[in-house]
Amino acid sequence: MPTSPVWNSRPKTRGMVLDLIRAARTISRIELATTTGLTPPTISEVVRDLMTDGLVVEAGRGASTGGKPPTLLRLNPTARYSVGVQLERNTCVIVVVDLAGRQVARTSFRGTAQMPPEQALPFLAAQVNATLDAAAVDRARVLGVGLVSYGPQDRHAGLLLTPQPTEEWGDYPVAPRLAEILGMPVLLDNDAAAAAIGEYWIGTVDPRSTYGCIYMATGIGGGVVVAGEVYRGSSSNSVEIGHISIDVHGDECPCGNRGCLENYSGPAAVVRQALELPGLTDQLMLDPTTTDFLTEFARIAAAANAGDTQARHLIEQSARYLGCAAVTITTLFDLDLIVLAGPSFAVAGSIYQTLIQQEVDRRTFARRAHPVRVVPSVNGSDAAAIGGAVLVLQSELTVGRARADDGPAPPAAEMRSAT
Amino acid sequence: MPTSPVWNSRPKTRGMVLDLIRAARTISRIELATTTGLTPPTISEVVRDLMTDGLVVEAGRGASTGGKPPTLLRLNPTARYSVGVQLERNTCVIVVVDLAGRQVARTSFRGTAQMPPEQALPFLAAQVNATLDAAAVDRARVLGVGLVSYGPQDRHAGLLLTPQPTEEWGDYPVAPRLAEILGMPVLLDNDAAAAAIGEYWIGTVDPRSTYGCIYMATGIGGGVVVAGEVYRGSSSNSVEIGHISIDVHGDECPCGNRGCLENYSGPAAVVRQALELPGLTDQLMLDPTTTDFLTEFARIAAAANAGDTQARHLIEQSARYLGCAAVTITTLFDLDLIVLAGPSFAVAGSIYQTLIQQEVDRRTFARRAHPVRVVPSVNGSDAAAIGGAVLVLQSELTVGRARADDGPAPPAAEMRSAT
Repeated sequence: MPTSPVWNSRPKTRGMVLDLIRAARTISRIELATTTGLTPPTISEVVRDLMTDGLVVEAGRGASTGGKPPTLLRLNPTARYSVGVQLERNTCVIVVVDLAGRQVARTSFRGTAQMPPEQALPFLAAQVNATLDAAAVDRARVLGVGLVSYGPQDRHAGLLLTPQPTEEWGDYPVAPRLAEILGMPVLLDNDAAAAAIGEYWIGTVDPRSTYGCIYMATGIGGGVVVAGEVYRGSSSNSVEIGHISIDVHGDECPCGNRGCLENYSGPAAVVRQALELPGLTDQLMLDPTTTDFLTEFARIAAAANAGDTQARHLIEQSARYLGCAAVTITTLFDLDLIVLAGPSFAVAGSIYQTLIQQEVDRRTFARRAHPVRVVPSVNGSDAAAIGGAVLVLQSELTVGRARADDGPAPPAAEMRSAT
Repeated sequence: MPTSPVWNSRPKTRGMVLDLIRAARTISRIELATTTGLTPPTISEVVRDLMTDGLVVEAGRGASTGGKPPTLLRLNPTARYSVGVQLERNTCVIVVVDLAGRQVARTSFRGTAQMPPEQALPFLAAQVNATLDAAAVDRARVLGVGLVSYGPQDRHAGLLLTPQPTEEWGDYPVAPRLAEILGMPVLLDNDAAAAAIGEYWIGTVDPRSTYGCIYMATGIGGGVVVAGEVYRGSSSNSVEIGHISIDVHGDECPCGNRGCLENYSGPAAVVRQALELPGLTDQLMLDPTTTDFLTEFARIAAAANAGDTQARHLIEQSARYLGCAAVTITTLFDLDLIVLAGPSFAVAGSIYQTLIQQEVDRRTFARRAHPVRVVPSVNGSDAAAIGGAVLVLQSELTVGRARADDGPAPPAAEMRSAT
């Protein structure tokens, strides 16, 4: 027998109303009633609950439509906080965001590539605590931690299904272990999916949009958001754009596929291509022994921006390959927007944006049905970490609670707590 | 302000209850209450409505759980019917299905490749009427017609955004025009999306599954179903797998992309490859001037099945290329099942199934998270037409009515009626 949503549950209504207030920035009770189809008394009751919890406050009066001007409601951004932790080979970012998704504190440091999890996670926890202390955020208002990293993952068990950066990380229970050290719920999710939803929560995307995010750090990932929710698929291992084939005759990738995008477009591929050019290698003082591809890639990107012909050629080639994959995800998911996020777009983002837009305009199957825009993320290099924090807000306050009884694997149940 | 679902609406509850009864085949009122979380009195009221409309009937008693054995409910298959019309270049299929999605009548004839729409649509309408007459179905019980064809489409306006098979078809209002001739609502949709949902309605797929359908007729399309609903994207022009690139260095396709799957795997490509082999061409008496690629392709597929080395090589090559694209959609949508549907799998389906399964097992990114099965469609060659009819049932009885006020473009509003 199929599982099925539970109707009429107060948590669902509460989550939906809160999300409407967030999306609208300010809205009256009567507008909430009109939008939801709920009765004004029900709306009043739900809003009273939200105000009692401090999540929503009154914010002056709106325009009159004849009678007394209605009281407007808005989120109370300081009512709740969450922490986003991006765990990556070469770079880690920790952010604290408020209920509106605004960053109130940030730390970054070199990645965990050289550390086994037993050593990395206590270090990470100490950094989280220090960041919360620095922001002077009341711990009672912190909903939890969104830990985001590459896939594949077992999101429910809170572990990475890949031996990266080292063997010890594969199948290690990163989320439960970090939760245990921090004494705080920790949710594990995909970095690119997080980057995608971060864009939505911040309010820069039309709530009805079906959009994609291409996230490029050391690897390349992707996320798709449909009407405000991450597209999940069977096991939350979706939109792994770095490992789709762009060349059926290409070389085998360690992932098992061949001709994977990441090996054509990714920072490591670009650095490898640059190292085959002795002039460029010397000029940019590239380190042939490096494993920190982000740093070397940033030098190449900077040279491309500055007009160096060889560097520019490499970055443009990377962008064209990425454009090919962008066309594939647009044609498959029927996207109306592509957001470019992550540290590897930080330097030469405008070259990528221009060339990916060209490819999408020229090659997307349904381009006659509607335009597809390519834009940089408002959250830039920190998009994954901010998105991780946003996933906690969304899971705890709107989608998660709303769906607590809906289906076999509710997001709320995935929060790992040591308490 | 975002649009938002309307809660507590009777049509939604009614649609959900009906869908649960359909999926469960037989179910008691108390099981419905448990599954939905609705109160027993609400369930009784909804069921009474459904029985008054003749959609649901009682079907004996279930097993006792202590007290009196509960009365079981099931769909009344003959309560409603719908028509599915698959419009294709080389072949057209018309089916009439009952409420359970079972085919009660079928007609097929050569496609519309040579006819302009002014001539083809009255002919099509006459065939629909003849098929309904032959099945002796009461017109009052026919919900409408699901007209399915290739993309891109403007589903809301009911027109094809592509000048295929001839210039006159591009932008021609096929659905409104057919509705006008038939005096019956006509819904336009993608053939592969239809094939995908047909599989679900028939009840062969786990209702929670995220699965994909690869539909191969003259062209290659795709559809993805998430928990019983077609994945739509921005404009219902999603999963156009035939026009994703499998070779970034490949030739330009008329669609604007390069290295498109269809030009490697599709029937026309295989026939073209076969015509370059004089021995095979002579042996199979292939017609080098043909535009009916389905017929010539079927000969090659039959020879492959019979063990002809050259034919087998061509079909296997087609299957491997298709496998590459199957890996791409699986990695992007995180599918747990791939269904192969459409006439071009009719002859050599088992070769395709075996090789696509191999590629998916070996190359899918999240293969450690869960297995992915590749299976033939239960609806075979008629999958698109049956799916078209099922989309009408689903739109009118469960999803469509349920969402009538949800968002800017409810499926129900897309039904074009001349009345």
